[in-house]
Amino acid sequence: MSDQPSIDSVRAATIVDPKDRKSFALKDRETRGDRIFDSKKDAKASLEADALAINELQDAMFACKAGALLVIIQGIDTSGKDGTTKECFKYTSPLGVNVFGFGKPSEEELAHDYLWRLHIRAPKRGFIHVFNRSQYEDVLVVKVRNLAPPKMIEQRYEQINAFEKLLAENGTRVLKLMLHISKEEQGVRLRERLEVPAKRWKFNPADLEDRKLWDKYQQAYETAIQRCSTPHAPWHVIPADSRSRRDATAARLIRGELEAMKPSYPDPGYRLDQFEID
Amino acid sequence: MSDQPSIDSVRAATIVDPKDRKSFALKDRETRGDRIFDSKKDAKASLEADALAINELQDAMFACKAGALLVIIQGIDTSGKDGTTKECFKYTSPLGVNVFGFGKPSEEELAHDYLWRLHIRAPKRGFIHVFNRSQYEDVLVVKVRNLAPPKMIEQRYEQINAFEKLLAENGTRVLKLMLHISKEEQGVRLRERLEVPAKRWKFNPADLEDRKLWDKYQQAYETAIQRCSTPHAPWHVIPADSRSRRDATAARLIRGELEAMKPSYPDPGYRLDQFEID
Repeated sequence: MSDQPSIDSVRAATIVDPKDRKSFALKDRETRGDRIFDSKKDAKASLEADALAINELQDAMFACKAGALLVIIQGIDTSGKDGTTKECFKYTSPLGVNVFGFGKPSEEELAHDYLWRLHIRAPKRGFIHVFNRSQYEDVLVVKVRNLAPPKMIEQRYEQINAFEKLLAENGTRVLKLMLHISKEEQGVRLRERLEVPAKRWKFNPADLEDRKLWDKYQQAYETAIQRCSTPHAPWHVIPADSRSRRDATAARLIRGELEAMKPSYPDPGYRLDQFEID
Repeated sequence: MSDQPSIDSVRAATIVDPKDRKSFALKDRETRGDRIFDSKKDAKASLEADALAINELQDAMFACKAGALLVIIQGIDTSGKDGTTKECFKYTSPLGVNVFGFGKPSEEELAHDYLWRLHIRAPKRGFIHVFNRSQYEDVLVVKVRNLAPPKMIEQRYEQINAFEKLLAENGTRVLKLMLHISKEEQGVRLRERLEVPAKRWKFNPADLEDRKLWDKYQQAYETAIQRCSTPHAPWHVIPADSRSRRDATAARLIRGELEAMKPSYPDPGYRLDQFEID
Protein backbone atom coordinates (compact mmCIF):
# COMPACT_ATOMS: atom_id res chain seq x y z
CA MET A 1 0.00 0.00 0.00
CA SER A 2 3.04 2.27 0.29
CA ASP A 3 2.92 3.34 -3.35
CA GLN A 4 -0.80 4.11 -3.53
CA PRO A 5 -1.55 7.38 -5.29
CA SER A 6 -2.69 10.20 -3.03
CA ILE A 7 -6.18 11.60 -3.37
CA ASP A 8 -4.67 14.82 -4.70
CA SER A 9 -2.76 12.99 -7.40
CA VAL A 10 -5.86 11.04 -8.47
CA ARG A 11 -7.80 14.27 -8.58
CA ALA A 12 -5.08 15.87 -10.70
CA ALA A 13 -5.02 12.87 -13.06
CA THR A 14 -8.76 12.88 -13.68
CA ILE A 15 -10.03 16.44 -13.35
CA VAL A 16 -10.96 18.61 -16.30
CA ASP A 17 -9.48 21.92 -15.22
CA PRO A 18 -12.27 24.52 -15.22
CA LYS A 19 -9.76 27.22 -16.20
CA ASP A 20 -8.74 25.28 -19.28
CA ARG A 21 -11.94 23.43 -20.00
CA LYS A 22 -12.50 24.69 -23.53
CA SER A 23 -9.42 22.89 -24.78
CA PHE A 24 -10.50 19.59 -23.26
CA ALA A 25 -10.36 16.67 -25.68
CA LEU A 26 -11.57 13.20 -24.78
CA LYS A 27 -8.95 11.61 -27.04
CA ASP A 28 -6.20 13.01 -24.78
CA ARG A 29 -7.50 10.93 -21.90
CA GLU A 30 -6.43 7.34 -21.38
CA THR A 31 -9.01 4.58 -20.94
CA ARG A 32 -6.69 2.04 -19.27
CA GLY A 33 -5.91 3.69 -15.95
CA ASP A 34 -2.46 2.21 -15.50
CA ARG A 35 -0.97 5.64 -15.07
CA ILE A 36 -3.00 5.90 -11.86
CA PHE A 37 -2.68 2.38 -10.49
CA ASP A 38 0.34 0.28 -11.49
CA SER A 39 -1.44 -3.03 -11.01
CA LYS A 40 -4.90 -4.41 -10.47
CA LYS A 41 -3.69 -5.69 -7.14
CA ASP A 42 -2.81 -2.16 -6.03
CA ALA A 43 -6.17 -0.93 -7.26
CA LYS A 44 -8.02 -3.60 -5.31
CA ALA A 45 -6.16 -2.84 -2.11
CA SER A 46 -6.82 0.87 -2.53
CA LEU A 47 -10.53 0.30 -3.17
CA GLU A 48 -10.80 -1.90 -0.11
CA ALA A 49 -9.32 0.76 2.15
CA ASP A 50 -11.36 3.55 0.58
CA ALA A 51 -14.67 1.68 0.67
CA LEU A 52 -14.16 1.16 4.41
CA ALA A 53 -13.23 4.82 4.88
CA ILE A 54 -16.26 5.96 2.87
CA ASN A 55 -18.51 4.06 5.28
CA GLU A 56 -16.91 5.69 8.32
CA LEU A 57 -16.96 9.16 6.81
CA GLN A 58 -20.60 8.76 5.77
CA ASP A 59 -21.55 7.73 9.28
CA ALA A 60 -19.95 10.86 10.75
CA MET A 61 -21.48 13.00 8.00
CA PHE A 62 -24.90 11.59 8.84
CA ALA A 63 -24.30 12.34 12.52
CA CYS A 64 -23.24 15.95 12.03
CA LYS A 65 -25.36 16.75 8.95
CA ALA A 66 -22.66 19.19 7.86
CA GLY A 67 -23.46 18.84 4.19
CA ALA A 68 -24.54 16.48 1.43
CA LEU A 69 -22.76 14.73 -1.41
CA LEU A 70 -24.15 14.22 -4.89
CA VAL A 71 -22.20 11.81 -7.08
CA ILE A 72 -23.14 12.01 -10.75
CA ILE A 73 -22.04 9.03 -12.82
CA GLN A 74 -22.18 9.19 -16.60
CA GLY A 75 -20.74 6.92 -19.25
CA ILE A 76 -21.84 5.03 -22.32
CA ASP A 77 -23.39 1.57 -22.17
CA THR A 78 -21.18 -1.02 -20.43
CA SER A 79 -18.85 1.63 -19.00
CA GLY A 80 -19.73 0.35 -15.53
CA LYS A 81 -22.01 2.86 -13.84
CA ASP A 82 -23.73 0.16 -11.78
CA GLY A 83 -20.54 -1.67 -10.93
CA THR A 84 -18.72 1.45 -9.80
CA THR A 85 -21.60 2.43 -7.54
CA LYS A 86 -21.78 -1.05 -6.06
CA GLU A 87 -18.05 -1.28 -5.33
CA CYS A 88 -17.47 2.21 -3.94
CA PHE A 89 -20.37 1.89 -1.50
CA LYS A 90 -20.02 -1.80 -0.74
CA TYR A 91 -19.34 -1.13 2.93
CA THR A 92 -21.63 1.86 3.32
CA SER A 93 -24.88 1.41 5.19
CA PRO A 94 -27.92 1.86 2.95
CA LEU A 95 -29.18 4.23 5.64
CA GLY A 96 -27.04 7.03 4.28
CA VAL A 97 -26.70 6.42 0.55
CA ASN A 98 -29.44 6.39 -2.06
CA VAL A 99 -29.08 5.67 -5.76
CA PHE A 100 -31.37 7.07 -8.43
CA GLY A 101 -31.32 5.93 -12.03
CA PHE A 102 -32.51 8.31 -14.73
CA GLY A 103 -33.68 6.47 -17.80
CA LYS A 104 -36.22 7.57 -20.34
CA PRO A 105 -38.35 10.25 -18.63
CA SER A 106 -41.93 9.38 -17.67
CA GLU A 107 -44.87 11.35 -18.99
CA GLU A 108 -45.11 13.21 -15.72
CA GLU A 109 -41.42 14.05 -15.78
CA LEU A 110 -41.69 15.30 -19.34
CA ALA A 111 -44.52 17.58 -18.29
CA HIS A 112 -42.03 19.47 -16.09
CA ASP A 113 -38.78 21.17 -17.05
CA TYR A 114 -36.02 18.58 -17.51
CA LEU A 115 -34.22 19.49 -14.25
CA TRP A 116 -37.29 18.90 -12.09
CA ARG A 117 -36.86 15.15 -11.79
CA LEU A 118 -33.25 15.65 -10.73
CA HIS A 119 -33.89 18.42 -8.24
CA ILE A 120 -36.57 16.53 -6.31
CA ARG A 121 -34.01 13.75 -5.78
CA ALA A 122 -31.18 15.96 -4.56
CA PRO A 123 -29.74 14.80 -1.24
CA LYS A 124 -30.68 16.15 2.17
CA ARG A 125 -27.88 17.23 4.51
CA GLY A 126 -26.19 14.15 5.93
CA PHE A 127 -26.89 11.99 2.88
CA ILE A 128 -25.07 10.75 -0.20
CA HIS A 129 -27.11 10.41 -3.38
CA VAL A 130 -25.79 8.78 -6.52
CA PHE A 131 -27.31 9.77 -9.84
CA ASN A 132 -26.86 6.88 -12.27
CA ARG A 133 -27.22 9.00 -15.43
CA SER A 134 -28.46 12.52 -14.76
CA GLN A 135 -29.31 15.91 -16.25
CA TYR A 136 -26.47 15.27 -18.69
CA GLU A 137 -28.66 12.82 -20.61
CA ASP A 138 -30.50 15.94 -21.75
CA VAL A 139 -27.40 17.12 -23.61
CA LEU A 140 -26.17 13.62 -24.58
CA VAL A 141 -28.77 11.16 -25.88
CA VAL A 142 -31.17 14.04 -26.47
CA LYS A 143 -28.57 15.76 -28.64
CA VAL A 144 -27.32 12.69 -30.50
CA ARG A 145 -30.83 11.48 -31.26
CA ASN A 146 -32.25 14.94 -31.95
CA LEU A 147 -34.93 14.69 -29.28
CA ALA A 148 -35.06 18.46 -28.71
CA PRO A 149 -34.40 21.51 -30.88
CA PRO A 150 -30.68 22.43 -31.03
CA LYS A 151 -31.39 25.88 -29.61
CA MET A 152 -32.99 24.39 -26.51
CA ILE A 153 -30.09 22.00 -26.01
CA GLU A 154 -27.64 24.87 -26.41
CA GLN A 155 -29.28 26.70 -23.50
CA ARG A 156 -29.03 23.70 -21.23
CA TYR A 157 -25.31 23.82 -20.48
CA GLU A 158 -25.64 27.11 -18.64
CA GLN A 159 -28.89 25.98 -17.01
CA ILE A 160 -27.11 22.90 -15.71
CA ASN A 161 -24.20 25.01 -14.45
CA ALA A 162 -26.60 27.28 -12.60
CA PHE A 163 -28.41 24.29 -11.08
CA GLU A 164 -25.18 22.70 -9.86
CA LYS A 165 -23.98 26.03 -8.51
CA LEU A 166 -27.21 26.34 -6.54
CA LEU A 167 -26.59 22.94 -4.98
CA ALA A 168 -22.92 23.67 -4.26
CA GLU A 169 -23.60 27.07 -2.71
CA ASN A 170 -26.22 25.52 -0.46
CA GLY A 171 -24.06 22.81 1.05
CA THR A 172 -24.09 19.94 -1.45
CA ARG A 173 -20.77 18.90 -2.93
CA VAL A 174 -21.21 17.78 -6.53
CA LEU A 175 -18.79 15.14 -7.82
CA LYS A 176 -19.14 14.35 -11.52
CA LEU A 177 -17.57 11.18 -12.88
CA MET A 178 -17.40 10.29 -16.56
CA LEU A 179 -16.48 6.63 -17.05
CA HIS A 180 -14.29 6.58 -20.12
CA ILE A 181 -13.95 3.29 -22.03
CA SER A 182 -12.58 2.47 -25.45
CA LYS A 183 -14.72 1.25 -28.30
CA GLU A 184 -12.82 -2.05 -28.28
CA GLU A 185 -13.58 -2.64 -24.62
CA GLN A 186 -17.26 -1.89 -25.17
CA GLY A 187 -17.29 -4.55 -27.89
CA VAL A 188 -15.78 -7.07 -25.48
CA ARG A 189 -18.40 -6.26 -22.84
CA LEU A 190 -21.38 -6.38 -25.18
CA ARG A 191 -20.26 -9.82 -26.35
CA GLU A 192 -19.84 -10.84 -22.71
CA ARG A 193 -23.43 -9.84 -21.97
CA LEU A 194 -24.59 -12.26 -24.61
CA GLU A 195 -22.33 -15.06 -23.50
CA VAL A 196 -22.82 -15.03 -19.73
CA PRO A 197 -26.37 -16.24 -18.88
CA ALA A 198 -26.67 -14.11 -15.73
CA LYS A 199 -25.76 -11.01 -17.77
CA ARG A 200 -27.96 -11.67 -20.78
CA TRP A 201 -30.95 -9.78 -19.37
CA LYS A 202 -28.84 -6.62 -19.48
CA PHE A 203 -28.35 -6.87 -23.24
CA ASN A 204 -30.49 -4.54 -25.29
CA PRO A 205 -30.26 -4.62 -29.08
CA ALA A 206 -30.76 -0.84 -28.98
CA ASP A 207 -27.29 -0.60 -27.42
CA LEU A 208 -25.90 -1.62 -30.80
CA GLU A 209 -27.71 1.32 -32.39
CA ASP A 210 -25.98 3.60 -29.90
CA ARG A 211 -22.67 1.92 -30.66
CA LYS A 212 -23.08 2.89 -34.31
CA LEU A 213 -23.33 6.47 -33.08
CA TRP A 214 -20.10 6.12 -31.08
CA ASP A 215 -18.37 9.19 -32.53
CA LYS A 216 -21.41 11.38 -32.04
CA TYR A 217 -21.69 10.32 -28.40
CA GLN A 218 -18.01 10.98 -27.82
CA GLN A 219 -18.45 14.42 -29.33
CA ALA A 220 -21.51 15.12 -27.18
CA TYR A 221 -19.61 14.06 -24.03
CA GLU A 222 -16.68 16.26 -24.98
CA THR A 223 -18.91 19.27 -25.47
CA ALA A 224 -20.81 18.66 -22.23
CA ILE A 225 -17.55 18.40 -20.30
CA GLN A 226 -16.07 21.48 -21.98
CA ARG A 227 -19.13 23.51 -21.14
CA CYS A 228 -19.87 22.17 -17.66
CA SER A 229 -16.57 21.54 -15.88
CA THR A 230 -16.96 24.42 -13.46
CA PRO A 231 -15.10 25.42 -10.29
CA HIS A 232 -18.06 24.42 -8.11
CA ALA A 233 -18.62 21.12 -9.94
CA PRO A 234 -15.69 20.02 -12.10
CA TRP A 235 -15.82 16.92 -14.25
CA HIS A 236 -13.52 13.97 -13.66
CA VAL A 237 -12.75 11.56 -16.49
CA ILE A 238 -12.10 8.12 -15.12
CA PRO A 239 -10.26 5.51 -17.20
CA ALA A 240 -12.74 2.63 -17.22
CA ASP A 241 -11.34 -0.18 -19.37
CA SER A 242 -10.10 -1.92 -16.23
CA ARG A 243 -12.89 -2.47 -13.74
CA SER A 244 -10.65 -2.63 -10.69
CA ARG A 245 -8.77 0.58 -11.58
CA ARG A 246 -12.02 2.35 -12.44
CA ASP A 247 -13.61 1.49 -9.09
CA ALA A 248 -10.46 2.37 -7.15
CA THR A 249 -10.15 5.72 -8.91
CA ALA A 250 -13.79 6.60 -8.23
CA ALA A 251 -13.48 5.56 -4.59
CA ARG A 252 -10.42 7.80 -4.07
CA LEU A 253 -12.38 10.77 -5.41
CA ILE A 254 -15.48 10.02 -3.34
CA ARG A 255 -13.37 9.64 -0.23
CA GLY A 256 -11.69 12.94 -1.05
CA GLU A 257 -15.03 14.75 -1.21
CA LEU A 258 -16.15 13.31 2.10
CA GLU A 259 -12.86 14.15 3.80
CA ALA A 260 -13.09 17.71 2.51
CA MET A 261 -16.35 18.07 4.46
CA LYS A 262 -14.43 17.24 7.65
CA PRO A 263 -17.36 15.43 9.19
CA SER A 264 -17.14 14.79 12.93
CA TYR A 265 -19.45 13.40 15.54
CA PRO A 266 -21.18 16.29 17.28
CA ASP A 267 -21.00 16.37 21.04
CA PRO A 268 -24.25 17.78 22.39
CA GLY A 269 -22.55 18.15 25.79
CA TYR A 270 -24.65 15.56 27.60
CA ARG A 271 -22.93 13.53 30.28
CA LEU A 272 -24.14 10.39 32.01
CA ASP A 273 -24.27 11.96 35.48
CA GLN A 274 -26.77 14.58 34.29
CA PHE A 275 -29.46 11.97 33.81
CA GLU A 276 -31.20 9.38 35.87
CA ILE A 277 -31.77 6.21 33.92
CA ASP A 278 -33.62 3.68 36.03
CA MET B 1 -23.23 -24.12 10.43
CA SER B 2 -24.88 -27.55 10.57
CA ASP B 3 -27.20 -26.61 13.41
CA GLN B 4 -28.43 -23.30 12.00
CA PRO B 5 -32.18 -22.86 12.30
CA SER B 6 -34.11 -23.15 9.04
CA ILE B 7 -35.94 -20.16 7.65
CA ASP B 8 -39.22 -21.92 8.43
CA SER B 9 -38.28 -22.43 12.05
CA VAL B 10 -37.22 -18.79 12.45
CA ARG B 11 -40.49 -17.74 10.88
CA ALA B 12 -42.40 -19.99 13.26
CA ALA B 13 -40.47 -18.64 16.26
CA THR B 14 -41.17 -14.98 15.43
CA ILE B 15 -44.50 -14.76 13.63
CA VAL B 16 -47.67 -13.53 15.24
CA ASP B 17 -50.17 -16.02 13.84
CA PRO B 18 -52.92 -14.07 12.06
CA LYS B 19 -55.45 -16.72 13.02
CA ASP B 20 -54.64 -16.29 16.68
CA ARG B 21 -53.59 -12.67 16.71
CA LYS B 22 -56.10 -11.41 19.25
CA SER B 23 -54.52 -13.46 22.00
CA PHE B 24 -51.04 -12.13 21.26
CA ALA B 25 -49.21 -10.82 24.33
CA LEU B 26 -45.82 -9.15 24.13
CA LYS B 27 -44.86 -10.52 27.55
CA ASP B 28 -45.02 -14.05 26.14
CA ARG B 29 -42.19 -13.23 23.74
CA GLU B 30 -38.56 -13.51 24.73
CA THR B 31 -36.16 -10.61 24.25
CA ARG B 32 -32.92 -12.65 24.37
CA GLY B 33 -33.17 -14.77 21.25
CA ASP B 34 -31.21 -17.73 22.52
CA ARG B 35 -34.05 -20.07 21.65
CA ILE B 36 -33.36 -19.21 18.01
CA PHE B 37 -29.57 -19.06 17.96
CA ASP B 38 -27.65 -21.06 20.55
CA SER B 39 -24.62 -18.79 20.49
CA LYS B 40 -23.57 -15.42 19.18
CA LYS B 41 -21.03 -17.24 17.06
CA ASP B 42 -23.79 -19.21 15.35
CA ALA B 43 -25.77 -16.03 14.83
CA LYS B 44 -22.81 -14.25 13.25
CA ALA B 45 -22.13 -17.12 10.86
CA SER B 46 -25.79 -17.27 9.89
CA LEU B 47 -25.94 -13.51 9.29
CA GLU B 48 -22.83 -13.65 7.14
CA ALA B 49 -24.30 -16.33 4.88
CA ASP B 50 -27.69 -14.64 4.69
CA ALA B 51 -26.32 -11.16 3.98
CA LEU B 52 -24.42 -12.62 1.02
CA ALA B 53 -27.52 -14.51 -0.17
CA ILE B 54 -29.68 -11.37 0.17
CA ASN B 55 -27.32 -9.56 -2.20
CA GLU B 56 -27.53 -12.33 -4.79
CA LEU B 57 -31.29 -12.66 -4.52
CA GLN B 58 -31.73 -8.90 -4.80
CA ASP B 59 -29.61 -8.82 -7.93
CA ALA B 60 -31.80 -11.47 -9.59
CA MET B 61 -34.94 -9.75 -8.35
CA PHE B 62 -33.76 -6.51 -9.92
CA ALA B 63 -33.04 -8.33 -13.17
CA CYS B 64 -36.43 -10.02 -13.43
CA LYS B 65 -38.54 -7.35 -11.73
CA ALA B 66 -40.87 -10.08 -10.51
CA GLY B 67 -41.97 -8.17 -7.45
CA ALA B 68 -40.91 -5.78 -4.71
CA LEU B 69 -40.12 -6.15 -1.03
CA LEU B 70 -41.06 -3.70 1.70
CA VAL B 71 -39.40 -4.29 5.06
CA ILE B 72 -41.02 -2.36 7.90
CA ILE B 73 -38.89 -2.05 11.02
CA GLN B 74 -40.41 -0.83 14.26
CA GLY B 75 -39.11 -0.83 17.80
CA ILE B 76 -38.62 1.54 20.68
CA ASP B 77 -35.54 3.76 21.03
CA THR B 78 -32.26 1.82 21.05
CA SER B 79 -33.91 -1.40 19.85
CA GLY B 80 -31.57 -1.31 16.86
CA LYS B 81 -33.57 -0.31 13.79
CA ASP B 82 -30.53 1.29 12.15
CA GLY B 83 -28.14 -1.47 13.09
CA THR B 84 -30.41 -4.23 11.83
CA THR B 85 -30.83 -2.48 8.49
CA LYS B 86 -27.11 -1.93 8.16
CA GLU B 87 -26.18 -5.53 8.94
CA CYS B 88 -28.83 -7.31 6.87
CA PHE B 89 -27.99 -5.29 3.77
CA LYS B 90 -24.27 -4.97 4.33
CA TYR B 91 -23.47 -6.86 1.14
CA THR B 92 -26.37 -5.56 -0.93
CA SER B 93 -25.67 -3.01 -3.63
CA PRO B 94 -27.26 0.37 -2.89
CA LEU B 95 -28.64 0.15 -6.44
CA GLY B 96 -31.46 -2.09 -5.29
CA VAL B 97 -32.20 -1.14 -1.70
CA ASN B 98 -33.44 2.19 -0.36
CA VAL B 99 -34.08 3.14 3.23
CA PHE B 100 -36.61 5.72 4.34
CA GLY B 101 -36.86 7.02 7.88
CA PHE B 102 -40.18 8.35 9.12
CA GLY B 103 -39.71 10.79 11.96
CA LYS B 104 -41.96 13.63 12.95
CA PRO B 105 -44.06 14.46 9.86
CA SER B 106 -43.35 17.67 7.98
CA GLU B 107 -46.01 20.33 7.51
CA GLU B 108 -46.57 19.13 3.97
CA GLU B 109 -46.92 15.53 5.11
CA LEU B 110 -49.39 16.55 7.80
CA ALA B 111 -51.47 18.32 5.16
CA HIS B 112 -52.12 14.90 3.55
CA ASP B 113 -53.65 11.77 5.04
CA TYR B 114 -51.10 9.99 7.24
CA LEU B 115 -50.55 7.13 4.74
CA TRP B 116 -49.57 9.47 1.91
CA ARG B 117 -45.95 9.88 2.91
CA LEU B 118 -45.59 6.10 3.14
CA HIS B 119 -47.33 5.29 -0.12
CA ILE B 120 -45.20 7.64 -2.23
CA ARG B 121 -42.14 5.79 -0.94
CA ALA B 122 -43.40 2.27 -1.65
CA PRO B 123 -40.94 0.21 -3.73
CA LYS B 124 -41.08 -0.25 -7.47
CA ARG B 125 -40.89 -3.78 -8.85
CA GLY B 126 -37.33 -5.05 -8.57
CA PHE B 127 -36.53 -2.98 -5.48
CA ILE B 128 -36.28 -3.43 -1.73
CA HIS B 129 -37.35 -0.51 0.44
CA VAL B 130 -36.83 -0.41 4.17
CA PHE B 131 -39.12 1.75 6.27
CA ASN B 132 -37.29 2.75 9.42
CA ARG B 133 -40.43 3.53 11.43
CA SER B 134 -43.59 3.63 9.36
CA GLN B 135 -47.37 4.04 9.36
CA TYR B 136 -47.32 2.31 12.74
CA GLU B 137 -46.01 5.48 14.36
CA ASP B 138 -49.53 6.79 13.78
CA VAL B 139 -50.91 4.20 16.19
CA LEU B 140 -47.90 4.17 18.52
CA VAL B 141 -46.41 7.54 19.48
CA VAL B 142 -49.57 9.26 18.28
CA LYS B 143 -51.63 7.10 20.61
CA VAL B 144 -49.31 7.24 23.63
CA ARG B 145 -48.88 10.99 23.38
CA ASN B 146 -52.52 11.71 22.45
CA LEU B 147 -51.63 13.44 19.19
CA ALA B 148 -54.92 12.49 17.50
CA PRO B 149 -58.46 11.81 18.75
CA PRO B 150 -58.93 8.19 19.97
CA LYS B 151 -61.69 7.62 17.44
CA MET B 152 -59.38 8.48 14.53
CA ILE B 153 -56.64 6.25 15.86
CA GLU B 154 -59.12 3.42 16.26
CA GLN B 155 -59.97 3.63 12.54
CA ARG B 156 -56.33 3.43 11.53
CA TYR B 157 -55.72 -0.26 12.17
CA GLU B 158 -58.13 -1.29 9.45
CA GLN B 159 -56.89 1.48 7.17
CA ILE B 160 -53.35 0.19 7.58
CA ASN B 161 -54.50 -3.37 6.90
CA ALA B 162 -56.22 -2.25 3.70
CA PHE B 163 -53.12 -0.32 2.61
CA GLU B 164 -50.83 -3.28 3.17
CA LYS B 165 -53.28 -5.60 1.42
CA LEU B 166 -53.24 -3.27 -1.58
CA LEU B 167 -49.45 -3.51 -1.71
CA ALA B 168 -49.42 -7.28 -1.25
CA GLU B 169 -52.08 -7.93 -3.87
CA ASN B 170 -50.15 -5.82 -6.34
CA GLY B 171 -46.84 -7.60 -6.09
CA THR B 172 -45.10 -6.16 -3.03
CA ARG B 173 -44.28 -8.54 -0.22
CA VAL B 174 -44.60 -6.79 3.15
CA LEU B 175 -42.33 -8.00 5.95
CA LYS B 176 -42.99 -6.39 9.33
CA LEU B 177 -40.37 -6.67 12.05
CA MET B 178 -40.85 -5.51 15.61
CA LEU B 179 -37.54 -5.37 17.49
CA HIS B 180 -38.34 -6.45 21.02
CA ILE B 181 -35.96 -5.42 23.80
CA SER B 182 -36.26 -5.47 27.56
CA LYS B 183 -36.41 -2.34 29.66
CA GLU B 184 -33.13 -3.34 31.31
CA GLU B 185 -31.36 -3.58 27.97
CA GLN B 186 -32.70 -0.19 26.92
CA GLY B 187 -31.22 1.27 30.11
CA VAL B 188 -27.84 -0.25 29.26
CA ARG B 189 -27.95 1.19 25.74
CA LEU B 190 -29.05 4.67 26.78
CA ARG B 191 -26.15 4.81 29.23
CA GLU B 192 -23.84 3.57 26.48
CA ARG B 193 -24.94 6.41 24.23
CA LEU B 194 -23.80 8.86 26.86
CA GLU B 195 -20.53 7.10 27.55
CA VAL B 196 -19.25 6.43 24.03
CA PRO B 197 -18.25 9.73 22.35
CA ALA B 198 -19.12 8.55 18.81
CA LYS B 199 -22.61 7.60 20.02
CA ARG B 200 -23.35 10.68 22.08
CA TRP B 201 -24.96 12.59 19.18
CA LYS B 202 -27.67 9.93 19.13
CA PHE B 203 -28.73 10.67 22.68
CA ASN B 204 -31.87 12.69 23.03
CA PRO B 205 -33.13 13.65 26.49
CA ALA B 206 -36.66 13.18 25.10
CA ASP B 207 -35.89 9.44 24.89
CA LEU B 208 -36.00 9.41 28.69
CA GLU B 209 -39.51 10.85 28.57
CA ASP B 210 -40.53 7.98 26.31
CA ARG B 211 -38.85 5.53 28.68
CA LYS B 212 -41.12 6.78 31.47
CA LEU B 213 -44.04 5.80 29.23
CA TRP B 214 -42.59 2.30 28.72
CA ASP B 215 -45.73 0.41 29.70
CA LYS B 216 -47.95 2.55 27.52
CA TYR B 217 -45.69 1.97 24.52
CA GLN B 218 -45.64 -1.78 25.13
CA GLN B 219 -49.42 -1.73 25.28
CA ALA B 220 -49.67 0.29 22.06
CA TYR B 221 -47.32 -2.14 20.30
CA GLU B 222 -49.33 -5.10 21.54
CA THR B 223 -52.57 -3.61 20.24
CA ALA B 224 -51.06 -2.68 16.87
CA ILE B 225 -49.73 -6.20 16.43
CA GLN B 226 -53.01 -7.80 17.54
CA ARG B 227 -54.94 -5.70 15.09
CA CYS B 228 -52.52 -5.74 12.15
CA SER B 229 -50.90 -9.16 11.97
CA THR B 230 -52.74 -10.23 8.82
CA PRO B 231 -52.28 -13.14 6.40
CA HIS B 232 -50.91 -10.82 3.71
CA ALA B 233 -48.61 -8.95 6.10
CA PRO B 234 -48.02 -10.75 9.39
CA TRP B 235 -45.96 -9.26 12.19
CA HIS B 236 -42.74 -10.86 13.36
CA VAL B 237 -41.46 -10.15 16.87
CA ILE B 238 -37.67 -10.34 16.92
CA PRO B 239 -35.81 -10.79 20.19
CA ALA B 240 -33.46 -7.82 20.19
CA ASP B 241 -31.47 -7.80 23.44
CA SER B 242 -28.57 -9.48 21.62
CA ARG B 243 -27.48 -7.50 18.58
CA SER B 244 -25.98 -10.46 16.74
CA ARG B 245 -29.03 -12.68 17.26
CA ARG B 246 -31.37 -9.85 16.31
CA ASP B 247 -29.56 -9.17 13.04
CA ALA B 248 -29.29 -12.87 12.20
CA THR B 249 -32.99 -13.43 12.85
CA ALA B 250 -34.00 -10.48 10.68
CA ALA B 251 -31.68 -11.61 7.88
CA ARG B 252 -33.19 -15.12 7.87
CA LEU B 253 -36.65 -13.61 7.45
CA ILE B 254 -35.59 -11.19 4.72
CA ARG B 255 -33.85 -13.98 2.86
CA GLY B 256 -36.99 -16.08 3.21
CA GLU B 257 -39.13 -13.37 1.59
CA LEU B 258 -36.72 -12.99 -1.30
CA GLU B 259 -36.49 -16.73 -1.86
CA ALA B 260 -40.27 -16.98 -1.88
CA MET B 261 -40.30 -14.65 -4.89
CA LYS B 262 -38.15 -17.18 -6.75
CA PRO B 263 -36.26 -14.48 -8.63
CA SER B 264 -34.30 -15.65 -11.65
CA TYR B 265 -32.34 -13.97 -14.40
CA PRO B 266 -34.59 -13.58 -17.42
CA ASP B 267 -33.29 -14.89 -20.71
CA PRO B 268 -34.50 -12.63 -23.49
CA GLY B 269 -33.42 -15.28 -26.00
CA TYR B 270 -30.63 -13.25 -27.59
CA ARG B 271 -27.58 -15.15 -28.74
CA LEU B 272 -24.20 -13.84 -29.77
CA ASP B 273 -24.42 -15.11 -33.35
CA GLN B 274 -27.56 -13.06 -33.97
CA PHE B 275 -25.65 -9.80 -33.74
CA GLU B 276 -22.70 -8.21 -35.41
CA ILE B 277 -20.55 -6.35 -32.93
CA ASP B 278 -17.67 -4.66 -34.68
